[in-house]
Amino acid sequence: MRVGQIGERRLLQLIANYCSDRLGDDGAVMGATSPGWEMVITTDMLVQGVHFSPQTTSAYDVGWRAGTANLSDLAAMGADPWGITVALGIPADTPVRWVEQVYQGLADCAKQYDTAIVGGDTVRSPVPILSITAVGQVPSHQIIHRHQACIGDAILSTGPHGLSRAGLELLLHPHLQELLPPPNAQFLIQCHQRPHPRLDVVAKLRQIAANAPLRIAGMDTSDGLADAILQVCAASGVGAVIDLAAIAIHPDLPSLAGAEALNWVLYGGEDFELLLCLAPDLAQQLLSQLPTAQIIGEIVPCHQSNLSQLQVHQSFQHFI
Amino acid sequence: MRVGQIGERRLLQLIANYCSDRLGDDGAVMGATSPGWEMVITTDMLVQGVHFSPQTTSAYDVGWRAGTANLSDLAAMGADPWGITVALGIPADTPVRWVEQVYQGLADCAKQYDTAIVGGDTVRSPVPILSITAVGQVPSHQIIHRHQACIGDAILSTGPHGLSRAGLELLLHPHLQELLPPPNAQFLIQCHQRPHPRLDVVAKLRQIAANAPLRIAGMDTSDGLADAILQVCAASGVGAVIDLAAIAIHPDLPSLAGAEALNWVLYGGEDFELLLCLAPDLAQQLLSQLPTAQIIGEIVPCHQSNLSQLQVHQSFQHFI
Repeated sequence: MRVGQIGERRLLQLIANYCSDRLGDDGAVMGATSPGWEMVITTDMLVQGVHFSPQTTSAYDVGWRAGTANLSDLAAMGADPWGITVALGIPADTPVRWVEQVYQGLADCAKQYDTAIVGGDTVRSPVPILSITAVGQVPSHQIIHRHQACIGDAILSTGPHGLSRAGLELLLHPHLQELLPPPNAQFLIQCHQRPHPRLDVVAKLRQIAANAPLRIAGMDTSDGLADAILQVCAASGVGAVIDLAAIAIHPDLPSLAGAEALNWVLYGGEDFELLLCLAPDLAQQLLSQLPTAQIIGEIVPCHQSNLSQLQVHQSFQHFI
Repeated sequence: MRVGQIGERRLLQLIANYCSDRLGDDGAVMGATSPGWEMVITTDMLVQGVHFSPQTTSAYDVGWRAGTANLSDLAAMGADPWGITVALGIPADTPVRWVEQVYQGLADCAKQYDTAIVGGDTVRSPVPILSITAVGQVPSHQIIHRHQACIGDAILSTGPHGLSRAGLELLLHPHLQELLPPPNAQFLIQCHQRPHPRLDVVAKLRQIAANAPLRIAGMDTSDGLADAILQVCAASGVGAVIDLAAIAIHPDLPSLAGAEALNWVLYGGEDFELLLCLAPDLAQQLLSQLPTAQIIGEIVPCHQSNLSQLQVHQSFQHFI
């Protein structure tokens, strides 16, 4: 049996047998650091030709996006970043400048979020490969897990979706840029090349909660908004009623995607927003402080769910 | 300019510009966890065809060796392990069994040293690639750095060298196994396939020091004994007098290596012992508790050094 035949989900189930405790969140809780705080760790591997292409992603953006992906995983756990390590595999004929630009992008992203590259490894490999690990910390009673959504929770998206997908399309098919005013096209391309982790949401949640416990379920939407909703509901054993008509579609999306605009929003991926399930009053408080956030549904018992409308027909399956 | 033209050392110097503080140890100190303790993190990437070959390394051993390499880096900083993450890149036609065996080897290695795999990532890549990150902690006043060797320090090797190199030779040229009694050949092969991190040395040092500060310079010998001596001396701005005649050569090495036996000891690499520079009385205390340890020289001012005899003609240069 080959890994390509069993798919990623089954592979992850097999791997979980060799790992401690529960996997299944964007990061792993490693244990108490100082009293009242838990350490969180997360790792991502990015392979040229699989996760990025020289055609659409400059070396700087490879670094920036890798930083965002990992910091977003920390945000998805409610954690602040503490430091990043980077293992870089590159062929011997890689331009030195390419390597410097990758590190520059990663270092700039880290710096913007008050953290830094603290170490790593550099080795020879057949294609460029980046493996980033980020460590952070979160108050013990404010950890965001996927599995703790409760019936009655509001489902909140911290920002718009489909923009990264639109930016990618503009990069792959430059003639499409003529369909939009140049600043709008540039904005969408920027959304793809320089996404931001929502660590600001973590800061706001801490402010709202002060030192009180927070019970929030969530994850980031790096694999798509629909995927995040389905994963959180599956992990929590609940259903959801999603109001598809209420989900904001960026005004430039229909020009590019036509009838596919909603699909880009639901399945596009790589927007690095957070999908949070939380008590309605807390959701309202957060909403009042995050202009881009939106409540898109409600957690319900499984038999009242309308999640079947979110069949993930385009979600990213690494081994298919 | 290509990375293959500038070599690994220069590349690491360039990369250091984008990283926080000092790099140059086996791991990076990330900051205080609980009062009096520092967190240490280390990352290694292993690429099939570069760092391991299916011919000499089973999937289980790929996992085990990757675990050892990272835990050895923690030991080299004086740290206990806290947890390991693993990012695995594999082609879609990789047997599922291969993946399970890699994780089994890594999990077994982790378990033997009271730690565990806490998370990771699995992606598609053109060749199998493993990137491991290990996190540990060390008392703030007992961190082992490369740069703190002092004139008068004894130079201590925690165990024999050249055994991993001998084991590799036996695997690459099985007919050589006839030169040794079978258990001896198996022992050397085991040294190559299942090396052990010297976390026991860390425990002994803590025991000896109790809560007093320790000033020890050191690193692991994964890139060879000679390389470790040169690196520690360079980082500390000191020289050394090494007594080459005093360095133990395992009795089976000359049968396999002939006149090259000492070169295998000095430059073989991957024995995962520790090279420590410490006050002579402390070295004696450690020596009395570690049967395999040996004092092989003394730290001296640069002008009295005999390090030029250790020209690293066979050391591992990733990009050449």
